[in-house]
Amino acid sequence: MAAAIALSRRGRPGSAPNPNVGCLIVREGRMIARGWTQSGGRPHAEAAALAMAGDAARGATAYVTLEPCAHVSARGPACSDLLIEAGVARVVIAAQDPDPRTDGAGIARLQDAGIEVVFNVLAAEARAAMAPWWTRRTDGRPFTTLKLATSLDGRIARADGSSRWITGDRARAHGHLERAQHQAILVGRGTYEADAPALDVRLAGLESRSPRKYLLTRGAAPDGWTAAASPDDIADVDSLLVEGGAGAAAAFLAADRVDRLLLYRAPILIGDGRAALGDIGLADLADAHGRWRLADSRLLGSDRLDVYERTSTV
Amino acid sequence: MAAAIALSRRGRPGSAPNPNVGCLIVREGRMIARGWTQSGGRPHAEAAALAMAGDAARGATAYVTLEPCAHVSARGPACSDLLIEAGVARVVIAAQDPDPRTDGAGIARLQDAGIEVVFNVLAAEARAAMAPWWTRRTDGRPFTTLKLATSLDGRIARADGSSRWITGDRARAHGHLERAQHQAILVGRGTYEADAPALDVRLAGLESRSPRKYLLTRGAAPDGWTAAASPDDIADVDSLLVEGGAGAAAAFLAADRVDRLLLYRAPILIGDGRAALGDIGLADLADAHGRWRLADSRLLGSDRLDVYERTSTV
Repeated sequence: MAAAIALSRRGRPGSAPNPNVGCLIVREGRMIARGWTQSGGRPHAEAAALAMAGDAARGATAYVTLEPCAHVSARGPACSDLLIEAGVARVVIAAQDPDPRTDGAGIARLQDAGIEVVFNVLAAEARAAMAPWWTRRTDGRPFTTLKLATSLDGRIARADGSSRWITGDRARAHGHLERAQHQAILVGRGTYEADAPALDVRLAGLESRSPRKYLLTRGAAPDGWTAAASPDDIADVDSLLVEGGAGAAAAFLAADRVDRLLLYRAPILIGDGRAALGDIGLADLADAHGRWRLADSRLLGSDRLDVYERTSTV
Repeated sequence: MAAAIALSRRGRPGSAPNPNVGCLIVREGRMIARGWTQSGGRPHAEAAALAMAGDAARGATAYVTLEPCAHVSARGPACSDLLIEAGVARVVIAAQDPDPRTDGAGIARLQDAGIEVVFNVLAAEARAAMAPWWTRRTDGRPFTTLKLATSLDGRIARADGSSRWITGDRARAHGHLERAQHQAILVGRGTYEADAPALDVRLAGLESRSPRKYLLTRGAAPDGWTAAASPDDIADVDSLLVEGGAGAAAAFLAADRVDRLLLYRAPILIGDGRAALGDIGLADLADAHGRWRLADSRLLGSDRLDVYERTSTV
């Protein structure tokens, strides 16, 4: 299942608005086929894996990171029906589908067809791999990552606004990779006016992955941008990367809309300068504790990247 | 020699104003004695090791992290004479002594007595282990460590000044251990008035290691404290720990007086609050780069400690 979960991550962010699912088909201890949700959401992971397996799927075991769908759509058949038709003997499922059109119905349909079903295997890990889709499905908002690139003393620019460059090449390239993994990016009005950022993905081969651009503003959006009056005003994407500045970052934190922090930190001191965050509405220092846990830490050249996740994440 | 250097660190900070030296005596591949500069500066490392070796020192090899002294003092004999008297066959030395009373004279005296001398072995590592003494000896100022305890966004307190607690128990205990390893601690006037900090070492068994207390002020010092009008005003200690606040930290950075940064960072966000540093006189962002290199990084409970050293350190 861990391999199927790793595979499921390949579907991000292209599978949206469908969940990014991974599927492995195993026969006599050998992996004979694999699939993940393709760009645009179809084919589903199971359909892709079954197409690869062909007749060999008969009697095999399918590992799926999300309960196979039970509903027929105009765009394709239900995956539970496909698994039954292919004659698989056993289906191992990580997470149950919260979509009310499936939510247990996929499991029931497989069992009714005489297939052995095992479920709740690495369910939390599978949900984490689908966090964008899961968050939007269950909370009605995008899974949101806040990116901060600061000096050791937490500054994002000098007092005159100059911020080129705080972090080095490798940290900036990593930031572009993160852009490619998000459906949308947002900046505040100040950052837009100061930098007029292109926010595109400047990595060879990934230019087409440049995400939709949101501007946090009560005013009109410039050409090519979408305006969002508040953090709650973005409901039609699964994954959002908030790139700054301090006001936009603080607005998302104050609204408790941040699921993941990307902290790029350069080994420099700036002193008097612009802070990474504005007022986030913290009433007491004690309230600040216990909200974030370190999920990853690595050196990117001489910069350090620390990734924190909210402790109450899916 | 690496073992002798590790041993030399035991002399810090008690050996001041003498250098913290380590000495190993090896005979037929076995370590038969060891010594390091004792509290108050005497006995010297070589004297301590030779006393432990006794007659077994005859024909042995002595590893010393600093050139043995050539000058007789009222407090004891010259170590080069002690090594000659003990009949050692070979002396391996890391760093040459910059003290003009020795500076090569110790090596010459050993060689004149027919002892084989090897020097410049791991000299940089030995100097780093003696950094406080070396810095004061060569630059006439204390080796200075700046401690900052911040949130992920670089805040040292909320806007109302509340800062208890940002970091957790383990980070604070580590901070007390650092205090015990310094001869003196300094805070600024604002920190003194807000916190009236005791600045003592609150670790069992190390209470006697509480360092001298300096207040950065143009005014008078309170009872038990010494006043320093500027960072250049502290010349009679080898090692200084600057504990805050933002103004004192910035004054030492602006004067280029900081050799080592201790950054304790808690996994919390504060937003609007007090910055870790005031104006450090940075004219251009490009000037901020290349000054610090990561020397150590560790987790202390849920907090992270990063230790940075100036790139041009001894």
